[in-house]
Amino acid sequence: MASALPFDDIRTLLNTMPGPDMEAANKARSREAVLTKPPGALGKLEAISEHIATWQGHYPPRADRTVVAVFAGNHGVVAQGVAAYPQAVTAQMVANFQNGGAAVNQICKAYDLGLKVFELALEQPTGDITQVPALSEKDCAATMAYGMEAIAGGCDLLCIGEMGIGNTTIAAALACGLFGGTGKDWVGPGTGVDAAGLSRKADAVNRAVALHGDHLKDPLEALRRLGGRELAAMAGAVLAARMQRVPVIIDGYVATAAAAVLFRADQTALDHCLFGHCSAEPAHKRLLQAMGKTALLDLDMRLGEGSGAALAAGVVKAALACHNGMASFESAGVSNKD
Amino acid sequence: MASALPFDDIRTLLNTMPGPDMEAANKARSREAVLTKPPGALGKLEAISEHIATWQGHYPPRADRTVVAVFAGNHGVVAQGVAAYPQAVTAQMVANFQNGGAAVNQICKAYDLGLKVFELALEQPTGDITQVPALSEKDCAATMAYGMEAIAGGCDLLCIGEMGIGNTTIAAALACGLFGGTGKDWVGPGTGVDAAGLSRKADAVNRAVALHGDHLKDPLEALRRLGGRELAAMAGAVLAARMQRVPVIIDGYVATAAAAVLFRADQTALDHCLFGHCSAEPAHKRLLQAMGKTALLDLDMRLGEGSGAALAAGVVKAALACHNGMASFESAGVSNKD
Repeated sequence: MASALPFDDIRTLLNTMPGPDMEAANKARSREAVLTKPPGALGKLEAISEHIATWQGHYPPRADRTVVAVFAGNHGVVAQGVAAYPQAVTAQMVANFQNGGAAVNQICKAYDLGLKVFELALEQPTGDITQVPALSEKDCAATMAYGMEAIAGGCDLLCIGEMGIGNTTIAAALACGLFGGTGKDWVGPGTGVDAAGLSRKADAVNRAVALHGDHLKDPLEALRRLGGRELAAMAGAVLAARMQRVPVIIDGYVATAAAAVLFRADQTALDHCLFGHCSAEPAHKRLLQAMGKTALLDLDMRLGEGSGAALAAGVVKAALACHNGMASFESAGVSNKD
Repeated sequence: MASALPFDDIRTLLNTMPGPDMEAANKARSREAVLTKPPGALGKLEAISEHIATWQGHYPPRADRTVVAVFAGNHGVVAQGVAAYPQAVTAQMVANFQNGGAAVNQICKAYDLGLKVFELALEQPTGDITQVPALSEKDCAATMAYGMEAIAGGCDLLCIGEMGIGNTTIAAALACGLFGGTGKDWVGPGTGVDAAGLSRKADAVNRAVALHGDHLKDPLEALRRLGGRELAAMAGAVLAARMQRVPVIIDGYVATAAAAVLFRADQTALDHCLFGHCSAEPAHKRLLQAMGKTALLDLDMRLGEGSGAALAAGVVKAALACHNGMASFESAGVSNKD
């Protein structure tokens, strides 16, 4: 393994990520202090504005061209009886996205967000991770590069989400491979498997992690062996956004598992990311905690497809509207404390 | 006390509140079951859609004409040294609302919500509750009636919020009068008082509750004795909305204390209300718990002025967009489970 070149380009990017722009951060903090409200009274909305300025690297922060990128893939592991819906649903839901009928379409319309759908070789499911690696290194690196296209048209904020029957098992395997524990720690009902299905998921995760063994110590190897196309593409998108100074909102469990690959490669690699919501899929909270991250919203959602990230983008838009639009104590003639 | 007529009209309304429309609720539930997502996967968004349908009493649920009503009042209790900002700030912030410079203005713009500001005799602060009742019964009932104007122009969703220097002390006194405990249980830093100020707040609450004693057993008496104009107006607005089948989103601690008056008069009186967010003002959580209510968002906000309710209205709009706009399994040609 790791003899071919493709992952080398990714490793180079991971070694040259831009850091926070403290000048933009300071400008945001200074402005928050003079706006017509008690200091800190907008809570996380203030932190959001500072975050966006810091990672856009300019001031004022903007979220006028927000893109929600949804990546869809299929998974060989469904042969292990881990999914509640047939694999055909992945392609059917892609058509639903394209026809405007899914939840994420409605949320994008409500908040004026752009939506891009990336269909990733749905007719070629990845290898069954309990038997073989999901992807070759070449395929994995190429899919990461394809995911980077999410920001190609230009945007100031990127939301990432996914669709893929069987991919909560993939997320669980990847989380287990990256952070340890056993299958039981990382699986959940997903789209709604029963107790027997849940047990099959945990077993599949345990077998996959045992099979790939020490290779999993390298996070990119873990991604290609235990991941899937939409996870590779999301990891690529998150990394490309960092390089181009586009802040990111991560969606639920599967998107977080994809992003966690970058975190395990470099603990600062997700510093430009917000976590849109905490999913009702139980292991999402565990995975966020493993990285020391907290989510903005907690609305018992567990749909994926970027829906939680898009909802959080609505909050980000309101936060920036406050930051950029509010009057100062001086301009409004409002008396300050003391 | 209680010899005059005015509160009688309010009591009549409380006795004739419309209940939930179970037909609309069932229609909402039936539709959620066929939309292209696993059952329940949109979590609280699904519950929101059902709630709005249930309390609008028609189907489909709508939030196209949402009004954020902000009520402003001044309080004699500021003489007790309980506020971090001078009383003049109430009127100055009203001007800021009218000029479009406050946080709530920006959130309304971001989510296309209407904003109405009600200025309630700011030049006549209410009585200092540690010495006298805040309001006469006549004034209190008239202010409740004035608050009912919030929905006069027609709307399908109402958010209520407030502005009033000193009014977290008023909210604490009212909560203490309605639910028991001591001042210390119900006070918090508000806009930012120091430890000495916090201690003065708790002391003021204890003295006020002791002074008004058994009169507080009647929730409307508690409102006029310990409340304030903006709290009376908010209680009136929430009640009027119920009568007219307009669902309500309650803002933070002060708005919740006003609404709690109705709850203590009739435990079903707030069934048409959502609680937009849990404020960072610590007693808000306690007050919600005392009524068995949970809030949608928890973003460490503590600004008041309807900002948390308006932010939640953005979530409600997204929820209804999903409910009304999503395709069904059948219409989208997506295979269902099994």
